[in-house]
Amino acid sequence: MEALKSKILTDGVVLGSQVLKVDSFLNHRIDPVLMSGIGDTFAELFADAGITKVLTIESSGIAPAVFAALRLEVDLIFARKRKSLTLRDDIYTEKAYSFTKQEENEITVSKSFLNAEDRVLIIDDFLANGQAALALARIVRQAGGEVAGIGIVIEKSFQNGRQVLLDAGFRVESLARVASLENNTIRFVE
Amino acid sequence: MEALKSKILTDGVVLGSQVLKVDSFLNHRIDPVLMSGIGDTFAELFADAGITKVLTIESSGIAPAVFAALRLEVDLIFARKRKSLTLRDDIYTEKAYSFTKQEENEITVSKSFLNAEDRVLIIDDFLANGQAALALARIVRQAGGEVAGIGIVIEKSFQNGRQVLLDAGFRVESLARVASLENNTIRFVE
Repeated sequence: MEALKSKILTDGVVLGSQVLKVDSFLNHRIDPVLMSGIGDTFAELFADAGITKVLTIESSGIAPAVFAALRLEVDLIFARKRKSLTLRDDIYTEKAYSFTKQEENEITVSKSFLNAEDRVLIIDDFLANGQAALALARIVRQAGGEVAGIGIVIEKSFQNGRQVLLDAGFRVESLARVASLENNTIRFVE
Repeated sequence: MEALKSKILTDGVVLGSQVLKVDSFLNHRIDPVLMSGIGDTFAELFADAGITKVLTIESSGIAPAVFAALRLEVDLIFARKRKSLTLRDDIYTEKAYSFTKQEENEITVSKSFLNAEDRVLIIDDFLANGQAALALARIVRQAGGEVAGIGIVIEKSFQNGRQVLLDAGFRVESLARVASLENNTIRFVE
């Protein structure tokens, strides 16, 4: 997606060879026009996938995902992250290790909101090691539903997340694929 | 806003006389059409207020606020909540006690994203005791900016938040004002 790649080049901040900071339009300050365009793009890519729900994870996934859900004319569910686990029988829970924050989170979704008829589009802001997306996918499967695809705003293609998700059999659509951050330079996958 | 009030009546769950659960369209599952309408309504209410930025707080404020920002043609900033405080000189920090969660949070915004020229519309999903909105307003003032108004999706009018914000001199626009949850019945302010 060209508008996204332009924005990454102008506003992204490279912090070492592993971390791309996009606080200025995605993770803290949000450009709503860009988010709307991202939602449109996801909706077009998955237009024929029979999506019944969009699933993302708080907080940075919500803005792009809500526009995708609007265009696909389905509801959005945002999974909650939490540190400590009190067992509850009304929620699905999975663990995910966050590469960015270097911590493990419990990811939860209420059992009321996913079911065996659902074909779910999972959306997340970043793909690094793929653990957040995998945890969301396991939650969909706990509910008996199907993952129709995974939509990623920014993929760090120098990490293994994409391969992990492909190996697990998922369709992955990333709107920007960053090949490298070496030498303080953002290079995209050709 | 009639569409919102209808949704609260059909899908809201009363948990005692103090708590209204709207997990099914606002706080966990999100109805994007309703969120878009909420954004439109905020944008109309504050159309002449010279808004330069919308400010909300993760996570439930993001969906309604991003549509308001889109319609007002300004950026959205979502403040971060965090438990423990490491002092950093690049962020504004304020404390806020959450009535719903019965805990105190640190609310933070990067200093890069607010400045003295800003006229800010603060948006939040719920108004109970007003402490979250006040903390956001103090952050705007730390930056030297002005709070042009506070937009609330659901106001619990039987708590003191509205009066607290009015006493502090703010314009408050709530799209649904719940007068009472007594006897398991949702009653709106006339």
